[in-house]
Amino acid sequence: MLKEIRAPVVIINFKTYVEGTGKNAIKLAEDAERTSIETGVCFAVAPQYVDIPLIASKVDVPVFAQHIDPITPGSYTGHVLPEAVKEAGAIGTLINHSERRLKLADIDAAVARARQVGLMSLVCTNNTPVSVSAAALKPDMIAVEPPELIGTGISVSKAKPEVVTGTVDSVRKVNKEVIILCGAGITDGEDVAAALKLGTEGVLVASGIVKAKDPYKVMLEFAQAILRTK
Amino acid sequence: MLKEIRAPVVIINFKTYVEGTGKNAIKLAEDAERTSIETGVCFAVAPQYVDIPLIASKVDVPVFAQHIDPITPGSYTGHVLPEAVKEAGAIGTLINHSERRLKLADIDAAVARARQVGLMSLVCTNNTPVSVSAAALKPDMIAVEPPELIGTGISVSKAKPEVVTGTVDSVRKVNKEVIILCGAGITDGEDVAAALKLGTEGVLVASGIVKAKDPYKVMLEFAQAILRTK
Amino acid sequence: MLKEIRAPVVIINFKTYVEGTGKNAIKLAEDAERTSIETGVCFAVAPQYVDIPLIASKVDVPVFAQHIDPITPGSYTGHVLPEAVKEAGAIGTLINHSERRLKLADIDAAVARARQVGLMSLVCTNNTPVSVSAAALKPDMIAVEPPELIGTGISVSKAKPEVVTGTVDSVRKVNKEVIILCGAGITDGEDVAAALKLGTEGVLVASGIVKAKDPYKVMLEFAQAILRTK
Amino acid sequence: MLKEIRAPVVIINFKTYVEGTGKNAIKLAEDAERTSIETGVCFAVAPQYVDIPLIASKVDVPVFAQHIDPITPGSYTGHVLPEAVKEAGAIGTLINHSERRLKLADIDAAVARARQVGLMSLVCTNNTPVSVSAAALKPDMIAVEPPELIGTGISVSKAKPEVVTGTVDSVRKVNKEVIILCGAGITDGEDVAAALKLGTEGVLVASGIVKAKDPYKVMLEFAQAILRTK
Repeated sequence: MLKEIRAPVVIINFKTYVEGTGKNAIKLAEDAERTSIETGVCFAVAPQYVDIPLIASKVDVPVFAQHIDPITPGSYTGHVLPEAVKEAGAIGTLINHSERRLKLADIDAAVARARQVGLMSLVCTNNTPVSVSAAALKPDMIAVEPPELIGTGISVSKAKPEVVTGTVDSVRKVNKEVIILCGAGITDGEDVAAALKLGTEGVLVASGIVKAKDPYKVMLEFAQAILRTK
Repeated sequence: MLKEIRAPVVIINFKTYVEGTGKNAIKLAEDAERTSIETGVCFAVAPQYVDIPLIASKVDVPVFAQHIDPITPGSYTGHVLPEAVKEAGAIGTLINHSERRLKLADIDAAVARARQVGLMSLVCTNNTPVSVSAAALKPDMIAVEPPELIGTGISVSKAKPEVVTGTVDSVRKVNKEVIILCGAGITDGEDVAAALKLGTEGVLVASGIVKAKDPYKVMLEFAQAILRTK
Repeated sequence: MLKEIRAPVVIINFKTYVEGTGKNAIKLAEDAERTSIETGVCFAVAPQYVDIPLIASKVDVPVFAQHIDPITPGSYTGHVLPEAVKEAGAIGTLINHSERRLKLADIDAAVARARQVGLMSLVCTNNTPVSVSAAALKPDMIAVEPPELIGTGISVSKAKPEVVTGTVDSVRKVNKEVIILCGAGITDGEDVAAALKLGTEGVLVASGIVKAKDPYKVMLEFAQAILRTK
Repeated sequence: MLKEIRAPVVIINFKTYVEGTGKNAIKLAEDAERTSIETGVCFAVAPQYVDIPLIASKVDVPVFAQHIDPITPGSYTGHVLPEAVKEAGAIGTLINHSERRLKLADIDAAVARARQVGLMSLVCTNNTPVSVSAAALKPDMIAVEPPELIGTGISVSKAKPEVVTGTVDSVRKVNKEVIILCGAGITDGEDVAAALKLGTEGVLVASGIVKAKDPYKVMLEFAQAILRTK
């Protein structure tokens, strides 16, 4: 039951941080599970490919891949097959993260493939026009993240609120269903609360949690901010 | 002990074939383990990223990744971190497969990163000059595979023996240590025997085994051809 | 005056065909100019980069680049600077052709850069959802081209009319101004007439004209079809 | 006659600098021609694609493209056809510049295509192993440029002499004929003299000349350093 996405949601991208690799990845996922159980707020995790199966089998938390390739089974050595990610236990996938940008036609195809194999699709975008463009492809979720703020600790919800509200307004004109998140620089409860007040249904976060001294404590703070704001 | 590479070797690339994904991947790896035990010939497997951990922990067979990115831990969402692949249990990695070609500077960096984290590096190449070029970067192994023969069932060792002997001769002038394999179209014991007679120390094979009706039977045939030829 | 785009329009992509390179490119551009003068129908040409300056200075025809990079002046060796293309005499540029696909964020940036330097932007797309997605970025023109028909001689307007009408309908819901073309397999006047009847304002064509025995004759046929259909 | 490369040589990469675009590119090429005539030292220029034809027809200086694609004539919209670059008047091309890195197999193919159409090939590299690797492909020239020094004004020949001498020594073991240049941070005559003393036959330079207040004056200084060092 904890494996489903219920908005508002916090999605934690482990990137290729040491703190989010192997045994550390499992510990982080367990922290997310614990926070979910204690607060009722939905936390999902996006570990590296090789860490998906163990987390998915051992921890009661929704697992996203960080990327899938828009391929069907076949001769694609070194690529990420949506079916394989699904069988490994993921329930969704990031697509087009700023560190793994895709061609437009490939985003379209990846969203379609995710849908076919039963993975939720979360397309990352960098500004308002690109968010509208991505929303036209009918993914389940989008996350707008100004690349210049990623990893800075300066949160999009406080430094560029107009990007968030502009995205929410413009996307809603063409797509009523898509879940809209924001990301970049999210580090504390205030950033999360600000994101929700601007009209999003959650945040995509990486270093703010993964590289925190006490990730569980930050998750708890995020959850409490969400509970206060709802 | 079975986890080490001992030439002559057969490396099985599972690509993103259905027959090489998830449960099927484990079954194939077990077939490889069984053939190794029964014949003493070294078989290694290169499954998809998400299938590495389970195979590495359950099956006594050397596991290769199909690709690594030339990165260090950090902000590389969707990329393949060498450290993560190693911690998941792989002992080596393919680099620059024809379906996942890399920039020259990135091959150099990937070989260096593999060495740093203790992964064997196997660089794939498409012809003799590129093989010499790759050998200059001092990987542990190279595999020459004319792309036009990959997946055809027409084996490089029989259709283009001059590519194999030319590569062995030219590479040996600049690099005495590198293990030289060949691949593309390898489907039966004769192809394997021919490859060894041309001076290689093994083969890189994909559909010839993975998509065979009875993969174990083909592995056994490969092993017997190797034992006859040594 | 002939250098402006007036819909309905025929845009001829010279690709990297021998028949559209160097002296041949100038001859083709002169044929387009002559057809424009004789019929009043607007023909534009998209030659290779190195052929832009001579065509733009010698021939009275609107010239498009085949691609621009989303860059500003700086350290981008080997890239295509929008300002340089403009100074060379182009009035517009293709973006995201199926043979030169771009990342979504780069299409957005390339359209913006084209606007800044005064180049018309024509974004190529492969299906209806991607056309809507591209139209959200507010380019001047889009051209929907099912990749599986490009170069086949089987025209999109006759083989896949639903892709064309679906694109026109869906794009008009989010963008009233963008000029909509179609392409792929356009070879005779009937294909062009069909394209206009389906709601487009012209065609993007390559081999149908460039590789024709008598390109001028085919251009004339296209022009007459347009005049009959208007 | 001035259109031939005679070592020692200075090759000026105009990148996509404003100061090296359009009319400015012609002025720079004329400065190079003038310096060549006055000093007898060979200067070549690498302008943007669209600036090749006018420079090649008006100025008596060897012209290089900044990049070619490893393609034959055909359906490659937006790519750079070697034949087109040649017909436009270039006599050579950079390949694999650090700002336009290529896959290993594509470097091999681009060098081969350059040879076929009669263009000199100059492959850029980033360190000693990659230089040896590139030299194995038998280009006419290589230029080693540590990327971390490009554009800094700190010259490779003074800051990293061991990279230059290491490259010269290692490359000579596998390839006696290739002309070896170095680049990155070259800004004055001393840097050029140091490069020659380390065993190179010239330099690849960009901002040091293109963005200089008086490019002609810097070219003259380079020429005099070469004449003193020979």
